[in-house]
Amino acid sequence: MTGQQGELIDQDLVTGWWATDISRIRPGEIAFHGYPIEQLIGRAGFAEMVWLMLTGELPDRARGRLLEAALVSAVDHGPQAPSIAAARMAATCGVGLNNAIATGVNLLGDVHGGAGQQCMQVLAAIRDRVADGASIAETVEQTLAEHKAARRHVPGFGHRFHPRDPRRDPLIGLLQQAVQDGLVSGDYLAIGLELEAQLAQGRAKPVPMNIDGATALIYAELGFEPELGRALFVLSRSVGIMAHAWEEKQSGARIKGPIPRPLLADYTGPELRDVPAADDARLPEDFD
Amino acid sequence: MTGQQGELIDQDLVTGWWATDISRIRPGEIAFHGYPIEQLIGRAGFAEMVWLMLTGELPDRARGRLLEAALVSAVDHGPQAPSIAAARMAATCGVGLNNAIATGVNLLGDVHGGAGQQCMQVLAAIRDRVADGASIAETVEQTLAEHKAARRHVPGFGHRFHPRDPRRDPLIGLLQQAVQDGLVSGDYLAIGLELEAQLAQGRAKPVPMNIDGATALIYAELGFEPELGRALFVLSRSVGIMAHAWEEKQSGARIKGPIPRPLLADYTGPELRDVPAADDARLPEDFD
Amino acid sequence: MTGQQGELIDQDLVTGWWATDISRIRPGEIAFHGYPIEQLIGRAGFAEMVWLMLTGELPDRARGRLLEAALVSAVDHGPQAPSIAAARMAATCGVGLNNAIATGVNLLGDVHGGAGQQCMQVLAAIRDRVADGASIAETVEQTLAEHKAARRHVPGFGHRFHPRDPRRDPLIGLLQQAVQDGLVSGDYLAIGLELEAQLAQGRAKPVPMNIDGATALIYAELGFEPELGRALFVLSRSVGIMAHAWEEKQSGARIKGPIPRPLLADYTGPELRDVPAADDARLPEDFD
Amino acid sequence: MTGQQGELIDQDLVTGWWATDISRIRPGEIAFHGYPIEQLIGRAGFAEMVWLMLTGELPDRARGRLLEAALVSAVDHGPQAPSIAAARMAATCGVGLNNAIATGVNLLGDVHGGAGQQCMQVLAAIRDRVADGASIAETVEQTLAEHKAARRHVPGFGHRFHPRDPRRDPLIGLLQQAVQDGLVSGDYLAIGLELEAQLAQGRAKPVPMNIDGATALIYAELGFEPELGRALFVLSRSVGIMAHAWEEKQSGARIKGPIPRPLLADYTGPELRDVPAADDARLPEDFD
Repeated sequence: MTGQQGELIDQDLVTGWWATDISRIRPGEIAFHGYPIEQLIGRAGFAEMVWLMLTGELPDRARGRLLEAALVSAVDHGPQAPSIAAARMAATCGVGLNNAIATGVNLLGDVHGGAGQQCMQVLAAIRDRVADGASIAETVEQTLAEHKAARRHVPGFGHRFHPRDPRRDPLIGLLQQAVQDGLVSGDYLAIGLELEAQLAQGRAKPVPMNIDGATALIYAELGFEPELGRALFVLSRSVGIMAHAWEEKQSGARIKGPIPRPLLADYTGPELRDVPAADDARLPEDFD
Repeated sequence: MTGQQGELIDQDLVTGWWATDISRIRPGEIAFHGYPIEQLIGRAGFAEMVWLMLTGELPDRARGRLLEAALVSAVDHGPQAPSIAAARMAATCGVGLNNAIATGVNLLGDVHGGAGQQCMQVLAAIRDRVADGASIAETVEQTLAEHKAARRHVPGFGHRFHPRDPRRDPLIGLLQQAVQDGLVSGDYLAIGLELEAQLAQGRAKPVPMNIDGATALIYAELGFEPELGRALFVLSRSVGIMAHAWEEKQSGARIKGPIPRPLLADYTGPELRDVPAADDARLPEDFD
Repeated sequence: MTGQQGELIDQDLVTGWWATDISRIRPGEIAFHGYPIEQLIGRAGFAEMVWLMLTGELPDRARGRLLEAALVSAVDHGPQAPSIAAARMAATCGVGLNNAIATGVNLLGDVHGGAGQQCMQVLAAIRDRVADGASIAETVEQTLAEHKAARRHVPGFGHRFHPRDPRRDPLIGLLQQAVQDGLVSGDYLAIGLELEAQLAQGRAKPVPMNIDGATALIYAELGFEPELGRALFVLSRSVGIMAHAWEEKQSGARIKGPIPRPLLADYTGPELRDVPAADDARLPEDFD
Repeated sequence: MTGQQGELIDQDLVTGWWATDISRIRPGEIAFHGYPIEQLIGRAGFAEMVWLMLTGELPDRARGRLLEAALVSAVDHGPQAPSIAAARMAATCGVGLNNAIATGVNLLGDVHGGAGQQCMQVLAAIRDRVADGASIAETVEQTLAEHKAARRHVPGFGHRFHPRDPRRDPLIGLLQQAVQDGLVSGDYLAIGLELEAQLAQGRAKPVPMNIDGATALIYAELGFEPELGRALFVLSRSVGIMAHAWEEKQSGARIKGPIPRPLLADYTGPELRDVPAADDARLPEDFD
């Protein structure tokens, strides 16, 4: 503010800058999207609370349970994953458990944590075309052809480690039941199964739906936007990150690196050489 | 490794370095603490899964619900909190939603996220003395005297914003019910209520239990170690961090700072001055 | 590893996984890109060391100084910036200074920290076309037309706060001197000045080069790849992030939010309402 | 703010909340601790700028060079370090280079990045006692006895990897020259050398000063406070973190874990078992 001290401003300029639809916090009062916290405690489940905070509405019990199953399914995939390993290493470096968890979460980027979100985007694009009257089979065929032409992997299918992801069947089973019970439309499920079927055609080794694909179907059926696919995965995986950070912290290890001594990372750079004098031209001739 | 290329080592040296009690991941198989994921999906609730991952055992439904209520209670406290504000600002800077969530979680340190853990440590110390035969009332009295002498605040009581934290009563109500139902011992609850009663004595303005104190009682009654108080709070607050980051991302704001233009942080340093020549003594006489 | 305990593997599998061209660490020996650390200490400047670590070669003094000037120029832009504000808030939350610095750095994403990198990409694209024989003036004209058609801002020009960025002139002055001294080719400088000149045409308010544009020119002239534009900016800004986190930590503030009490973020969501019973349909009719 | 919309407040309430001694940012003007940025660019070295930002004053060239040597010395220690490994793994997960750097910096906590700071605290405590008239030799003797009694390691001495840290001699050499030149008092150097000498007495294997100890001496002699030891180490190590993240990003690896396939972390938890029914008592009898 270039004005001089003591100048008056409308407080709204500041309080409006931080305006939110989510939380109403007043002395002695806390409410989220209009619901007082004292009514939510003991009545809303944790998954329902997640739903409320992200969408503004509470789900009924049955749909809340479907979200809950998806959140349960993705909590962890062991210390080979960089997110888990980084959190475990952080826990040995003298930082708080929150910092170790943040370290793991920070790694769930486009490549390590984004497949669900990307799958939801593919599903949404197909559904839009189907809603405009195209057939599912043809739209899926075109989509796969487009991916093939661009040499892009279809997100949510195949797993570099599991020939068949053991989380696929129970999740799809629950989703099929939800369609039967009229809880969700089944539009995305149909698209997902068609993708899976067409991807299997003519392959020696099928690429069945993985955890990212199966949860993407559930999240899409429940009405969540693609970017929230990442958020929900992050929340779910936070549980495993936390558990692993805690296990490592209890071990008492200090400054844990990726490989144990006496193993040493290979050095593949130039041979030992002397530092040239400051005034000499140090850069190789062809540097720029 | 100083040895030459091609040297053989026991693979256990490496696979044992990353050994874990938590996750058994084999091609086509995923199990946590021995339970196959396909049995957990749809049968374990999300809070129960959190319990399993952190302790190695599944709770019964009733105790799982008590944990769930505590997790629901602490999801958010609005954008005035630095953790929420930092996550919202991050969401406008061109990073992934996971990075924005990690930013918020990173701020839940000893001061901003540690009160529950610290309260659990106080409760555990009192309970140890009570288990050795001391009376609750006297031990609490001594504990409060020690805190007063050290000018330390008792963690988990009083709130700088709420005269009475609206989350206290429903949480304590659920905990009292759990004691009555024989789900938990009530040892910590008795200590917590005595702390609250003695803290109120002789004060014009009482300092009732806050969210950190009430959840600390629940987590302690359920058998969690103090450091997991921080972890469970982090998981709970992640939900609010995520919701606020998402709200801000949807707003389309870019590079959101703490205060809106045209407001400018006050500058309180030295007057404008010229950079002295490199060879002049630049440091003030009394620098070291 | 599905094999049984005690199986032997080639240690190279593991040490090669972490192979690096950068650091050779052996007992009693440390060398970077071949240069022993004991020769670098006291002979290489800090900016020269940055150069060595990122590119594998040491610069001569003169080019090292040009990098140094660019690193000096971008250290800070005050607490209105979300990166600085987040680091300051973190410093009051009971985390280490390293965690506070990491918090700030984490916010220097595509939008808040990426303009230099993006400007270098634009410069590189133009230079490629010029190297193929196109004229600078025409290529710049086409580039600006493309940006205009896509309603995209040209990164590195204009500042939302400074009518003319005070860092532009001294940086461009040093770069012009370097061209004159034969240290760099001047190819990028010519492109940058042409962009600036054409951007000014027909505007009441010119959009001169800003800090991102001026440093992008220097980094490009010195041979750095665009993505390192982000890295160098991060290193430079880390200095300000660190200084602000330290200032805030010394203040003794605790849990510093974005706005002071008694100011409260506006609440703009639904009116207070009761939580519906669990079995009721909770979602609005039109939810999905 | 409980008041109604449109209430006026003193803008100082808000602009003063973010007040700083460091940066004066006004339209067209940027100054740090009073020095205009256009005078700093090209005249202050990067290490001098670090000094200015952290302390409020510019050093003379000679002392700036001593800080610079210390910053150069600690840039990296290879990918075995968890901070470097975490940053490299992050770089393969689809996040920005800034996020990868933040990940590494986040791990430089009390254990992995705090030894320099802790050494400075030990040095300061000894110097205080010496300033009160105690002899260096006796105070060091007492300090070592106290550490031995508490089974605490003296921070800054010995290295788990290097029998003699190759960075010690060149750093101490520069510091001895600075004492001779009258740039610094030599008080801390005398204490550090006495600590080293007494630590060597009666040991088969001496524990010479390491990088943390040698840089702690320099930072203390230059007048920096202990906590800034951490900050300066973080800035220095950021260079290596950045270089390694960049090397890994260029490799094109995706989701890089700590160990290569087909190696799998050992599983050391309970045997596979069935999930008990929800209503059964799931916890072992002795859970609480």
